[in-house]
Amino acid sequence: MHTETPLMPGPILTDDELASVRREYRAARLLPARTYHDPAILEWERDHILRADWVLVAREEDVAEPTSFVRIEVDGEDIIVVRGRDESIRAFYNVCQHRGTAVEERECGKAVRFQCPYHAWIYDLEGTLIRAKHTDDLEDFSFAEYSLRPIHVATWQGFVFLNLSADEPEPLEGHLGDLVDQLSRFDFRNLRSAKQIIYDVNANWKFIAENYSECYHCPGVHPQLNKLTPYDLGGDYDPHGAWQGGWMELVDGAETMALDGGHGSRHNRPPMCGVTSEDERRIYYYVLWPLAFLSIHPDYLLVHRLEPIAPDRTRVICDWLFEPETIGKPDFDPSEPVEFWDLTNRQDWHVCELQQRGTRSRTWVSGRYSNNEPSVQAFDLMVAARYAGEPFPSRPTVRDRFDTPVPKPLGDAGNGNGTANGNGHAAGKDRLGARAKASSGG
Amino acid sequence: MHTETPLMPGPILTDDELASVRREYRAARLLPARTYHDPAILEWERDHILRADWVLVAREEDVAEPTSFVRIEVDGEDIIVVRGRDESIRAFYNVCQHRGTAVEERECGKAVRFQCPYHAWIYDLEGTLIRAKHTDDLEDFSFAEYSLRPIHVATWQGFVFLNLSADEPEPLEGHLGDLVDQLSRFDFRNLRSAKQIIYDVNANWKFIAENYSECYHCPGVHPQLNKLTPYDLGGDYDPHGAWQGGWMELVDGAETMALDGGHGSRHNRPPMCGVTSEDERRIYYYVLWPLAFLSIHPDYLLVHRLEPIAPDRTRVICDWLFEPETIGKPDFDPSEPVEFWDLTNRQDWHVCELQQRGTRSRTWVSGRYSNNEPSVQAFDLMVAARYAGEPFPSRPTVRDRFDTPVPKPLGDAGNGNGTANGNGHAAGKDRLGARAKASSGG
Amino acid sequence: MHTETPLMPGPILTDDELASVRREYRAARLLPARTYHDPAILEWERDHILRADWVLVAREEDVAEPTSFVRIEVDGEDIIVVRGRDESIRAFYNVCQHRGTAVEERECGKAVRFQCPYHAWIYDLEGTLIRAKHTDDLEDFSFAEYSLRPIHVATWQGFVFLNLSADEPEPLEGHLGDLVDQLSRFDFRNLRSAKQIIYDVNANWKFIAENYSECYHCPGVHPQLNKLTPYDLGGDYDPHGAWQGGWMELVDGAETMALDGGHGSRHNRPPMCGVTSEDERRIYYYVLWPLAFLSIHPDYLLVHRLEPIAPDRTRVICDWLFEPETIGKPDFDPSEPVEFWDLTNRQDWHVCELQQRGTRSRTWVSGRYSNNEPSVQAFDLMVAARYAGEPFPSRPTVRDRFDTPVPKPLGDAGNGNGTANGNGHAAGKDRLGARAKASSGG
Repeated sequence: MHTETPLMPGPILTDDELASVRREYRAARLLPARTYHDPAILEWERDHILRADWVLVAREEDVAEPTSFVRIEVDGEDIIVVRGRDESIRAFYNVCQHRGTAVEERECGKAVRFQCPYHAWIYDLEGTLIRAKHTDDLEDFSFAEYSLRPIHVATWQGFVFLNLSADEPEPLEGHLGDLVDQLSRFDFRNLRSAKQIIYDVNANWKFIAENYSECYHCPGVHPQLNKLTPYDLGGDYDPHGAWQGGWMELVDGAETMALDGGHGSRHNRPPMCGVTSEDERRIYYYVLWPLAFLSIHPDYLLVHRLEPIAPDRTRVICDWLFEPETIGKPDFDPSEPVEFWDLTNRQDWHVCELQQRGTRSRTWVSGRYSNNEPSVQAFDLMVAARYAGEPFPSRPTVRDRFDTPVPKPLGDAGNGNGTANGNGHAAGKDRLGARAKASSGG
Repeated sequence: MHTETPLMPGPILTDDELASVRREYRAARLLPARTYHDPAILEWERDHILRADWVLVAREEDVAEPTSFVRIEVDGEDIIVVRGRDESIRAFYNVCQHRGTAVEERECGKAVRFQCPYHAWIYDLEGTLIRAKHTDDLEDFSFAEYSLRPIHVATWQGFVFLNLSADEPEPLEGHLGDLVDQLSRFDFRNLRSAKQIIYDVNANWKFIAENYSECYHCPGVHPQLNKLTPYDLGGDYDPHGAWQGGWMELVDGAETMALDGGHGSRHNRPPMCGVTSEDERRIYYYVLWPLAFLSIHPDYLLVHRLEPIAPDRTRVICDWLFEPETIGKPDFDPSEPVEFWDLTNRQDWHVCELQQRGTRSRTWVSGRYSNNEPSVQAFDLMVAARYAGEPFPSRPTVRDRFDTPVPKPLGDAGNGNGTANGNGHAAGKDRLGARAKASSGG
Repeated sequence: MHTETPLMPGPILTDDELASVRREYRAARLLPARTYHDPAILEWERDHILRADWVLVAREEDVAEPTSFVRIEVDGEDIIVVRGRDESIRAFYNVCQHRGTAVEERECGKAVRFQCPYHAWIYDLEGTLIRAKHTDDLEDFSFAEYSLRPIHVATWQGFVFLNLSADEPEPLEGHLGDLVDQLSRFDFRNLRSAKQIIYDVNANWKFIAENYSECYHCPGVHPQLNKLTPYDLGGDYDPHGAWQGGWMELVDGAETMALDGGHGSRHNRPPMCGVTSEDERRIYYYVLWPLAFLSIHPDYLLVHRLEPIAPDRTRVICDWLFEPETIGKPDFDPSEPVEFWDLTNRQDWHVCELQQRGTRSRTWVSGRYSNNEPSVQAFDLMVAARYAGEPFPSRPTVRDRFDTPVPKPLGDAGNGNGTANGNGHAAGKDRLGARAKASSGG
């Protein structure tokens, strides 16, 4: 069962600001302008989101073998993630407990121990202080108390998540909610990244997440993408957990998202483990709150991770993951999917940067959703819930993203106050191909 | 009649600080140091000066033909200025009302409409939203309400002014006051820029305006200029409106300000339209509050526009404007005036930057005027009036800039509490060549 | 007699923070993390340390002859230090009292007067305004009042100190306390800098001073240095004044600190004036509060000066000073000492920068001293005294830096509440070669 404890502090937005986001979506407004520009808001987000939620930071393959480690930055914190000799993955702040020096200087590698370069204090791979010369007669001092400070770690589908809260957090599975069941038919644990591109985007992280959440912009911004998966073919899920998502449908003749999209565009890459014949006709898009996107293709998994640098700057790390058997084939060549998404990414960053620039205007208060952007509101409602210090909403108010005629009944779609549906996945399936014009009440 | 509504908020300076600037000028102090260094002061100035006053931003020639537009930045705002098919000039914030994206990416050009690059919302040249897909069933939504936000525009002598206040501002002519009559003998509407140089000056915008307002520094800083127009030959006007100015006299044998100053230095450039034989012996200098300087030469018009970037940084855009017939001559060559003023500009920026650096000292409180700088106080008094939220003073306390013997009576010159003279221009003329040592009271 | 007036303002640290630093050193914690990162703390330090204490800024040789001057920056202030025709050294803020312009633009040179480049006001070498055109009839104005603002200057051992406080400060000799006697056997006045290297270090100035104060890091960080002066051979002084220091012993066969350390490494450089046979076997290290380090070698004097630029950035100016006779020798070559200390400096900056990075972590509160770092606490206690607005502690709580067996009695060593010893120098001598494991009570 997905549960969530309310966050401590009072809301950072005014009641009016929160209310305007939380209206029924055809009457709602987007998040207020200042949430994308004010350094104090980002600071608040760092404290209450980045340091309070599970954050996807790496793949298990990044610490593939015992004694391998990687250094990671989350929320400005320098963190060591290391696989112990016992195969367990652990994480520590990279801070010597003597005088605060960064202990490990390498970005990644193998370590038999961590030795501070300043005064040579030594910690083992479990973070325990095991050597500190000239400390034998100190008061109130023990190696146990002066060990590297640990960070909560959990894994799922080959992803490594950290939670930087000082207290024991909700388990990762509870945080992910019904996404765990929904993606259980897949097995992403063995996937390997064949390509990584890091982008420096001059836009707020929330603009990037909103951009990922809708395809209203696809006809104009992504003509290549829109040809393979038209913006009005697909559906959205009812999430119960810290995520939201949906799918788009490949047009006849298209096999995957690639620059040479169409028949043969998979170049003999077999479907990933668990992919059904239905999945082979779809691209699934998931926002893993707060900072990761999973885009599931029949033959590869695209992963975006966001690192907020400043209110108007975000680093985006994009990985193309394939089955190891696929990568191992002599004719393996990921360039068509890589170039397709690199192009699409850059198209997105461009409009996000224009949005960042435009919304700087003092005249700008907040925007409006078209009726093709309910998933943007779904994301904004997650943000608003955090700002309000409340649990995530059990569901977005409206779940269809289309304004074309309804081909078949949608049950409670458009019913903003329906009771929670325990099986969002099944609900999603029922709505395959739905193009609903919901009677969204008023 | 020039009228002015007091600005809303309370003063940003203390009573003592304001009083020390507003003393009779031989006892007065300059603006306090922090007004040139404190980011909060610049922020206040942005709100209460740059967004409250008419600001000269462009020439009509920049949007010469119907459908031509130019993008302009005022106070950090990205603004589209466009000439409609009806020849009217309009201005809008470059912000799509959907999700706040910058609509127009080009710096200038022709536009049949403005289409947002993100979700393709379309606005006509009057700023009206005319197409927004998937918005037909939104609540509290109309194309009229979601049109581009307009900005007040006015023109005078071929200059385009914007006023960014939300409320209806005082008309431009009222703001300019008696400057309109004073310059009515000229017709600058057809002038064209033959050269533009943009400078990045590490000094506060007010230091640059103060520097422009006096020639006490000319003997040492501008030996070339001082040879053509000695610092002690000229006079100042009694302004009634948001301006201040004066003139300097060309020495015998000098025809204009140019690197080869002297006989023949106009190179067959005829006088500009409206220039009298008296004008041919003078250079007029006008500060158009808050951010523009007009320097009227017999044969060309020099225009400086300031863009405050930071407390210690100002962009200065300098244009050399000539009559189109002059520019059209086969032997037209503006290089002598351009090089003369480029040299003079750089000499000024250098001392302004040294002043910015020196006044950073924590020991620095504020300076003193010599008795050769009443126009600096005149400018400071305009600033102080804005800081106090009061109308501009009807006249500066003292109007002569010279401490040499008085050659002829000056009427009310030096009389700090005289009644306003409705004809500053005529007053100026009477004082041609005046070198007054005013009895400045005490 | 060393006296000190308490500083005005209340403490900037909490009582708990101050108490944790001020405990007996085996129980004490280092200064809190925020003192190294918070811009408000640096601002406080600028006001209450850099502008309140005597700061070593130059050598007398920098203004060797009458009319020679040098420009110096202290605490962001642009300062002229000049030797008058009467041989006296004076200092002034480089700010014209007319409109605040920086008067002198050259870094150093000779000056017959200081003439402002803006309006040509002229000051003599004593800072007195002697010419200001067009000021004859101003009110409340006199040349005396509008002279360059002077700064307190004092010299000792050829060093020039400034004190920027507005009030009359304690005399320099009182500030230096018993250091004056302790170093009176030397005569550094004639020394000349043969080499200067300026470093830009991404670390707080206090981290750099702490680093200089201990050799616990030497075995790992400075293998070259540790071979010549092993970290556990030496002793510390009981300071009475704004300083702290100690010495290390050269191993047999080593003559000085140089890259070719060992026999012959002095390359015929004779001992400096005043160096005894005991001094020839030692390197003395002194922190001159707040921003200078003196490292006395048998044959040269190494001087570090720190200039805090930002919480995480410090400029370090390092000079190698020799006797003029030594420099004058035809075979004089300082490269071995220069390269030795340049290497050592860079090793230190590297770990200081890692410490700056590590201590940024929000999880970092403050560190612990090993029992080999009492001089680090001695420095931190000076900082804490300033933070508390109190006089410097009469002595550090513990003075031995070694945890190896005590070879001979140490008197009051380790006695945190002993009465002040008026002759720290003699105490130091008694402890030559001490490797004390003090019974540090607590």
